[in-house]
Amino acid sequence: MSDSQSTIAVASPADFHVHLRQGELSTLVTKHVRQGGFNVAYVMPNLKPPITTTDEALLYRAQLQAIDPAVQYLMTLYLSPDLTPDEIRKASRAGIVGVKSYPRGVTTNSDGGIESYEAYYPVFEAMEEEDMVLNLHGEVPSDAAANTCVLNAEPAFLPHLRKLHARFPRLRIVLEHATTRAAVDCVKSLGDTVACTITAHHLALTVDDWAGQAWNFCKPVAKYPDDRQALRDVIKQGLWFAETEDRAHVSTAMFISAGHPRFFLGSDSAPHPPETKSSATPQHACAAGVYTSPILLPLVAQLLESFGALDRLEGFVSTYGRAFYRIPIASGEAKVTLRQVQGKIIQEKWAEGNQSVVPFWAGKELVWEIVG
Amino acid sequence: MSDSQSTIAVASPADFHVHLRQGELSTLVTKHVRQGGFNVAYVMPNLKPPITTTDEALLYRAQLQAIDPAVQYLMTLYLSPDLTPDEIRKASRAGIVGVKSYPRGVTTNSDGGIESYEAYYPVFEAMEEEDMVLNLHGEVPSDAAANTCVLNAEPAFLPHLRKLHARFPRLRIVLEHATTRAAVDCVKSLGDTVACTITAHHLALTVDDWAGQAWNFCKPVAKYPDDRQALRDVIKQGLWFAETEDRAHVSTAMFISAGHPRFFLGSDSAPHPPETKSSATPQHACAAGVYTSPILLPLVAQLLESFGALDRLEGFVSTYGRAFYRIPIASGEAKVTLRQVQGKIIQEKWAEGNQSVVPFWAGKELVWEIVG
Repeated sequence: MSDSQSTIAVASPADFHVHLRQGELSTLVTKHVRQGGFNVAYVMPNLKPPITTTDEALLYRAQLQAIDPAVQYLMTLYLSPDLTPDEIRKASRAGIVGVKSYPRGVTTNSDGGIESYEAYYPVFEAMEEEDMVLNLHGEVPSDAAANTCVLNAEPAFLPHLRKLHARFPRLRIVLEHATTRAAVDCVKSLGDTVACTITAHHLALTVDDWAGQAWNFCKPVAKYPDDRQALRDVIKQGLWFAETEDRAHVSTAMFISAGHPRFFLGSDSAPHPPETKSSATPQHACAAGVYTSPILLPLVAQLLESFGALDRLEGFVSTYGRAFYRIPIASGEAKVTLRQVQGKIIQEKWAEGNQSVVPFWAGKELVWEIVG
Repeated sequence: MSDSQSTIAVASPADFHVHLRQGELSTLVTKHVRQGGFNVAYVMPNLKPPITTTDEALLYRAQLQAIDPAVQYLMTLYLSPDLTPDEIRKASRAGIVGVKSYPRGVTTNSDGGIESYEAYYPVFEAMEEEDMVLNLHGEVPSDAAANTCVLNAEPAFLPHLRKLHARFPRLRIVLEHATTRAAVDCVKSLGDTVACTITAHHLALTVDDWAGQAWNFCKPVAKYPDDRQALRDVIKQGLWFAETEDRAHVSTAMFISAGHPRFFLGSDSAPHPPETKSSATPQHACAAGVYTSPILLPLVAQLLESFGALDRLEGFVSTYGRAFYRIPIASGEAKVTLRQVQGKIIQEKWAEGNQSVVPFWAGKELVWEIVG
């Protein structure tokens, strides 16, 4: 994979969780997908109003293609009571790839989110038949009486994941933006139809980083150092730990440098206008979201390198996710090459028209850059 | 304690943990002690530079008395290598009440904090002889390798508290601003020389409230709902749970309405200039601190009432702390009376000269007010 000590080439990177918004903000951020080194964007449907029909998804895709036709946009629908098995079949025929489930009220534009899954079983049956993917925002709403809050909302969701997988074993399910050791262990323990995305920023942050720092605040929130370690470990050592409790009983040579094919990048890159990221008054909390798109591939390379997993880069950002989603690389498509760089500081913001966005790590140094 | 359904009278309230700052900010906030219903202020020494000598503490007290002579200021020294047993004896003779220990780097102006306690044993011996109080900011610094972060920094500190109490059983120790069930349980389990302050805001907040909301961000951070419940329970039910595991073996009538005499209010009211409370750029986190002084007694009454503990108000804000610190109420001193009120909104800020401070719960309704 590495051409020399100072460059690394990656087969067509794919970001399996992106927010491309709408209107002027979309014009600004959609162009950042390729700028960040990615050729595929798996597009979230939580617009205002959410994308709930095939026709809306196709219209949205056309809008995105008009902004940058070189990106392959994989479209999703927002799970809601409006979604029927017939609409699923129509969506599948139209090339819509997945359906995103948001628990009610836990993140940006999730007021219409779901409260219980049983009502959606007919939809999931149709999705299983059509081989569509179910994408889960895996958090339960906070409930003080149950001691549930942003810190344990993800572990509290995992029984729902286990139950869905048991009921629909052929349904491909992705637990999005995992942040806890519990989530990593759960996904490892489930079958090959269950995968997990990991963001770049959750490989960098812990709770200490968003305490008092709105720009690092996102949902799910970054958790304990040990949780971050579990995310790093599954990327670096993946199957080696996943498939055995007893090192003596496996051939480690088979697994030692494999990573884990069911854990791959979904950046959850989520742009918000800068004024919504400041809690300038006591009455309003700031928007939840970290924006990584324009620097994504160099950022992920730098993070993986920081914990000794740079050789897992291609699997994590391309081949594992593409294999799970069955999105092959077009024949003849060139690799994206990164080279080491010094003194490259992440700019404070990107702006166009009335819109601006502030990236993660603004003002910090990146040590990789995309060869233009 | 209650004159009628709509008023409540409290014997001379005492706030056993306050930051009164210096310079113009001190002029503004020191006057808020009495405005908030309090006659005694236990004053923290973390100025720039910190208060490390008797002479500095007496000068600081004189400055505070010049701002509002009606408040009784109880002074403290900042534990540092400069503090000697001789200085402890001098401080005690001069009426200095306590010594505050900050672990290095965990909160505002704690860069000179301590890293290990053994070096201070001669100081603690002198304090024990002089009957001075040791005030502990009970958090260890974050350490990713040990999985320590702001969420478990307090439980990780508790072994230090246990060790200090075992080594100095006659030394009065206060664990400041407890935020966890582990801390409450630990202090309950220790002897009568160990007490614990609880802030008003930690009776209201959980982690969800400061996630993305800088005005609710303080150190220690508010924790899980169950931790908040432990703080509420020890105020409401205190000794009843503290002294027995088996209801059949105690006379509940003795304890049922007692609260817990070793748990009392220390507001940790910590004013910061508004511009330091905003994380307007990705490069700087906001200041840690919640400001409650000007609304403190009505706020505490409202919070205790919210969990059915209004009849514990006098013990929590006055008699328990005064008994532990041996600060009697002056003979003839009038009680402070609160009355119920409707439509009273907490103002957005208090300002004087170039200084302003934004209170906790700005814009929210208070349902008690001090009878002027």
